[in-house]
Amino acid sequence: MALKILIIGGVAAGPKTACRLLRLLPDAQVTIIDQDNLISYGGCGIPYYVSGDVSDEKELRNTSFHMTRDESFFMRAKGVKVLTRTRASNIDRKRKLVAVENLDSGAKEELPYDRLVLTTGSTPVILPIPGADLNGVYTISDLHKAIAIKERLAKGEVGRAVVIGGGAIGVEMAESFADLWGVETTVIEFMPQLLPSILDPVVAAMLAKHLRDKGVTVHTSEGATAIEADAHGQACRVVTAQRTIEADLVIMAAGVRPRSQLAQEAGLLVSPRGGIIVDERLQTSDPNIYAAGDCIEVTHLVSGQKCHAPLGSLANRQGRIVADNLAGLASRFNGWGGSFIMKAFKVCVGATGLSLAAAKTAGFNADQAITAQSDRAHFFPNQTVIPLFMVFDRPSRKILGVQGFGPMGDAVLARIDAAAGLIARGGTIDDCSQLDLAYAPPFATALDALNATANVADNKAAGRLTTISISDYLTWMANPASQPEWLALDIRHPAETAAFTAKFGPLWLAIPYAEIRARHQEIPADKTAIIICDAGTRSYEVQCVLNAHGHRSLVLGGGFNCIRRIGVEWWPTA
Amino acid sequence: MALKILIIGGVAAGPKTACRLLRLLPDAQVTIIDQDNLISYGGCGIPYYVSGDVSDEKELRNTSFHMTRDESFFMRAKGVKVLTRTRASNIDRKRKLVAVENLDSGAKEELPYDRLVLTTGSTPVILPIPGADLNGVYTISDLHKAIAIKERLAKGEVGRAVVIGGGAIGVEMAESFADLWGVETTVIEFMPQLLPSILDPVVAAMLAKHLRDKGVTVHTSEGATAIEADAHGQACRVVTAQRTIEADLVIMAAGVRPRSQLAQEAGLLVSPRGGIIVDERLQTSDPNIYAAGDCIEVTHLVSGQKCHAPLGSLANRQGRIVADNLAGLASRFNGWGGSFIMKAFKVCVGATGLSLAAAKTAGFNADQAITAQSDRAHFFPNQTVIPLFMVFDRPSRKILGVQGFGPMGDAVLARIDAAAGLIARGGTIDDCSQLDLAYAPPFATALDALNATANVADNKAAGRLTTISISDYLTWMANPASQPEWLALDIRHPAETAAFTAKFGPLWLAIPYAEIRARHQEIPADKTAIIICDAGTRSYEVQCVLNAHGHRSLVLGGGFNCIRRIGVEWWPTA
Repeated sequence: MALKILIIGGVAAGPKTACRLLRLLPDAQVTIIDQDNLISYGGCGIPYYVSGDVSDEKELRNTSFHMTRDESFFMRAKGVKVLTRTRASNIDRKRKLVAVENLDSGAKEELPYDRLVLTTGSTPVILPIPGADLNGVYTISDLHKAIAIKERLAKGEVGRAVVIGGGAIGVEMAESFADLWGVETTVIEFMPQLLPSILDPVVAAMLAKHLRDKGVTVHTSEGATAIEADAHGQACRVVTAQRTIEADLVIMAAGVRPRSQLAQEAGLLVSPRGGIIVDERLQTSDPNIYAAGDCIEVTHLVSGQKCHAPLGSLANRQGRIVADNLAGLASRFNGWGGSFIMKAFKVCVGATGLSLAAAKTAGFNADQAITAQSDRAHFFPNQTVIPLFMVFDRPSRKILGVQGFGPMGDAVLARIDAAAGLIARGGTIDDCSQLDLAYAPPFATALDALNATANVADNKAAGRLTTISISDYLTWMANPASQPEWLALDIRHPAETAAFTAKFGPLWLAIPYAEIRARHQEIPADKTAIIICDAGTRSYEVQCVLNAHGHRSLVLGGGFNCIRRIGVEWWPTA
Repeated sequence: MALKILIIGGVAAGPKTACRLLRLLPDAQVTIIDQDNLISYGGCGIPYYVSGDVSDEKELRNTSFHMTRDESFFMRAKGVKVLTRTRASNIDRKRKLVAVENLDSGAKEELPYDRLVLTTGSTPVILPIPGADLNGVYTISDLHKAIAIKERLAKGEVGRAVVIGGGAIGVEMAESFADLWGVETTVIEFMPQLLPSILDPVVAAMLAKHLRDKGVTVHTSEGATAIEADAHGQACRVVTAQRTIEADLVIMAAGVRPRSQLAQEAGLLVSPRGGIIVDERLQTSDPNIYAAGDCIEVTHLVSGQKCHAPLGSLANRQGRIVADNLAGLASRFNGWGGSFIMKAFKVCVGATGLSLAAAKTAGFNADQAITAQSDRAHFFPNQTVIPLFMVFDRPSRKILGVQGFGPMGDAVLARIDAAAGLIARGGTIDDCSQLDLAYAPPFATALDALNATANVADNKAAGRLTTISISDYLTWMANPASQPEWLALDIRHPAETAAFTAKFGPLWLAIPYAEIRARHQEIPADKTAIIICDAGTRSYEVQCVLNAHGHRSLVLGGGFNCIRRIGVEWWPTA
């Protein structure tokens, strides 16, 4: 008799499981149930639908060959039965039955299974603050809400929007409001930086500056305490400890949680964070039940720690693995590599592996190398600087993570994905230094930015390069008296340094890079030189010279290319 | 006493060695000699200088911070002595002396060394044909020739150009002539395809079509037999067995050879191909002499075979390793990964590892998976298809190579570099299927094109997917009678298939993808269905259905997205 597979959840991992399984086992009887009427859509595309980049929500539900993935499509093309508007209320594991209810007719029935697959996704966190349930407060959790938001924008009902939560979805939504619709948009983030669980603080600061440059107001270290209503009961302002912000529309983007109540009630193992616990074959604690996608707990490939990684990419990869295992192929899902990329207006931020903070939290003896090199040959017309941040483990020299910031395009993606490939196989600094990245002037520098970052990590790991962190540098600039023995040694071109020496006087010693060998004696013997250039590369060379002459120095990794992208108040205006 | 380091060759590997060494050993006495007066330039940028993308040759010699890398710069900024216009004529290994001559003054002297570094580069192959030495025949071997070419272009002296050699330099030069200068340009390649030693024939065919679309004439399988002169002794036409082509300027781009005569005369081991033989620490057969860059033989990381890889990226990486070893750090150069990327007008081609032909030649039991997926979410505005070609080893499932074709931009680069990272660490199909590539709709599809290609490789390696090669398919289309039992099963949309069924009649059966489950009986039982869609993805699904019903079939991997990019004469015009 044909294997009966029942899949609960029809957005990403569920349909992927179903379709792959029917290719492997054409005789299987596969049924997907979903409580929504819209299924199998690209949820990550919602911000681009709201912004107008994607004109019709149907495009998010279409295949690349322009067929809409609805019940009829799944039946005809894939041989998969889909029951929409159907909610699962109970799993009877003994009898292998799932109790379901049709949300339109109210009809109830029990669906039998040989193997059950839970792809129930995630659910947005609703902050426990007054007004969270008001009209005009939206989560980005399904297509219906996206359609409602876009309708309000199109009607001109939204002049001001507040986004609660500066994670990826919050930032993407802020862009979609401000960019095309010209909505006055504010992002509030409770933590001291945007994308706190993902980005290095410096990368996050670059992102925040760009958002502000594009007209988005960003408040970090600021939580929403209430959402207030107008006379019609419509959300009209967001209150924080610092201020009250008028809003015609409020987005609640405070994160998501695994949707695992059904699994929990059925007695399956669920983690304290709410993720369904699965093994590498994505089997739950019941061997007849598999789970995949946003609802499960995964292992971080670099830290080895358990985490929740609600990403469309993982859902698709996991769906394939569930299907393989249902069909008797022992494929394994090893974990999440931490890879991430996001567009924000004209820039992008990318990451893979662990941030420095996450690596330290995970117990690594971690350090970081920062560069600000060109993405392509510096003589090539459209070249630009892409700051890269590489985290490594000092004792093993393994690369733990890479982050990047750059203009929109795939330059940062290329470096992140190359690093992901290395990290997935336990690559070291030396592997990355020698990594054979493709080179031609329109695409890269002869020594690619990623190779160069590994070289900086090598110099740092070997103790040849001694740096000051960007945050320590900024702290000092805010209060130079805190480190009276420090002196800025600015080795850039005199045309660049003049405004700084004029403004900072004795704090600022300018000696051009090429003159250091002849003029290093000008550095007072009792000072530690904070060496400053645009990228950190020349500064390291200068440090080697200074070391040879007995001077103490610290290199500002990434140099002023990074500082400029963060934006600082003390930058001379001349 | 300070270590005396003498470096012969001042373009890429030499200066890199010198500068890194002085950072590691500030007391070292480092001298570079070069027979040219222009040194330390980005030779790979020459086509972009000729095209006008780079306006001044100085930009190729400048640092990213706008200083020109001349003798004075190296002395002041780096502490390196450079002797230009100085040719080394002999190495006395016993006395550790190099005999040199100043090419301007004729003065001769002997320079002592403790360690010698040979970074003598490569020399262009001059075909042994009549007229190869005429005025108006140029190689792309140094900046002076590039300046001379650009001067002639700027003076309007070049209406027609012939490029002998369809390798990377030949194609880049053809673009630089045709694109900005509007020169009528012809490329002649002796082998049956462009970039024969690098690209898969299908990728090369896509490149050739694009060149032709941009107005460049491309003749493959055609060698130049003579270059003829006008009355003034100026090259004016190129003769092949097939035709005579008028030319105001001829580029000889028939490859390069390691420049190793000096090493050979000094009794150092040199390979039959002319590359100086070095170990992993880049030491020659004389422990006091190192070598790096275009003049050495390297090991291919995937095949393990010896080869010549004259690339600026390798020269820079190798220069660092020589310096490390001179300074007592035991860094190793493991080899070349085969990574390559090239711009041609509006497209790019990229590669890493081995092509299918090279893998088979190297003795692998190799096979290939082809896809034609979108580079980013198919609903995202600027998405486009990037055909990818993955070569894998059947028994070990290791990935041996990846190639890609796409529009200008970094989308192909990202996939090539990610694959390079995996291949460098011995990654398998399964590693690549699960590779955690960064995902957001503006950058990738949820299941990235590279993941998807690995999945196709998996299906193929496991015998679940049975394909027909593009070349076999094209052979059959040229002569359907050669395989009378074959039948095209076109599963695209009826609007797309109509012209094909009209043109090809009984050869062409059109059943839309979504109707296969209901209509597979229409396929004659005695036929093998050649399943055709745009990318191969739907075709594989259909093959699974057909297999279940006992039909024989073959999938055209990459589908018509590939065929369209190659261009075929039989394409219906309607």
